[in-house]
Amino acid sequence: MSVSSRLSAQMSFLLEVDRLKSVLRASSLCDGSRKENSAEHSWHIALYAMTLAEHAVRPVNIDRVIKMLLIHDLVEIDAGDVPIHNNPDPEGQAVLEQKAATRIFGQLPEDQAHEFRSLWDEFEAVETDDAIFAKSIDRVQPVISNLENGGESWIEFNVTKQQVETRVGAKVERGAPAIWQSLKKRIDAWFAEK
Amino acid sequence: MSVSSRLSAQMSFLLEVDRLKSVLRASSLCDGSRKENSAEHSWHIALYAMTLAEHAVRPVNIDRVIKMLLIHDLVEIDAGDVPIHNNPDPEGQAVLEQKAATRIFGQLPEDQAHEFRSLWDEFEAVETDDAIFAKSIDRVQPVISNLENGGESWIEFNVTKQQVETRVGAKVERGAPAIWQSLKKRIDAWFAEK
Repeated sequence: MSVSSRLSAQMSFLLEVDRLKSVLRASSLCDGSRKENSAEHSWHIALYAMTLAEHAVRPVNIDRVIKMLLIHDLVEIDAGDVPIHNNPDPEGQAVLEQKAATRIFGQLPEDQAHEFRSLWDEFEAVETDDAIFAKSIDRVQPVISNLENGGESWIEFNVTKQQVETRVGAKVERGAPAIWQSLKKRIDAWFAEK
Repeated sequence: MSVSSRLSAQMSFLLEVDRLKSVLRASSLCDGSRKENSAEHSWHIALYAMTLAEHAVRPVNIDRVIKMLLIHDLVEIDAGDVPIHNNPDPEGQAVLEQKAATRIFGQLPEDQAHEFRSLWDEFEAVETDDAIFAKSIDRVQPVISNLENGGESWIEFNVTKQQVETRVGAKVERGAPAIWQSLKKRIDAWFAEK
């Protein structure tokens, strides 16, 4: 594949992913002014990971974690964002996301398509230390938004403290127990005052 | 500094930077539906760099480039975004950005404040290979947006082809000449049809 063919494929991919800026999530910004989109969320959690790497339960390759987080939500361009507190058909969603990954990463030159897809598969499988930490960080940021903006998405989906502990806490604790300990105090206080 | 003090400082920083999602840029999304914000822009160019690293004029450490791009616009939280095609007071803006960097990175634990600030200083100085490539990528993405959305910010600021070549082309060519050659053809065609 020539340099110009590679560049052309890469540019098509980079144009396509602009659409992630129009995928809205359940969470609002910390100031509550509007719903967050998946592109700015991806930026924020990459920076979360870069800042909080020292709290990973086991040492991680932070450069791989950051790359994983930059691409982790690209499948939402086709499959949409499914809130963790409102996901009636996880199996159906997983099928949609697999198809989306094939289409979207498939726009890249073959070596890169393979590299990006492997990173995404690793994130989804949540088995390696890098993926376990990445997944924990993905769960931390919406908790902070809720704690700051009056619990918007918790109220919208009628979420209980136990559900936050099961759906969020278990994953955060697995990858970053010190962060979960700190969050848990704030979550307990928020639900006590609710 | 204890783990909990570090975590507390890091969380304050990560909350503060949520505000970058509300800093609007001159460029619109590729579909022209709204102005882009600096957080989603930062995500997009980090992914641009990850995808296009092979086109850097000299080999780069892509992991450092990505980190640089994730933090390169944080100063806009205080100093605002200044469009490259409408920057009447670059010296005054630079002073504001230096102050912003001191305040924002200063929220982190000292070692990280130093690490992040050094990366930002390196990006701003545009002297190392990593910074030269990072700066070129930062200039590429708004060109693509303009080519896709009918030249919104070029029309808004009455930009000529020569100005695109001077303000954008010189920087892109310095860091990624193959990308500039490809873009230049599309820019020439766009201005010829205007």
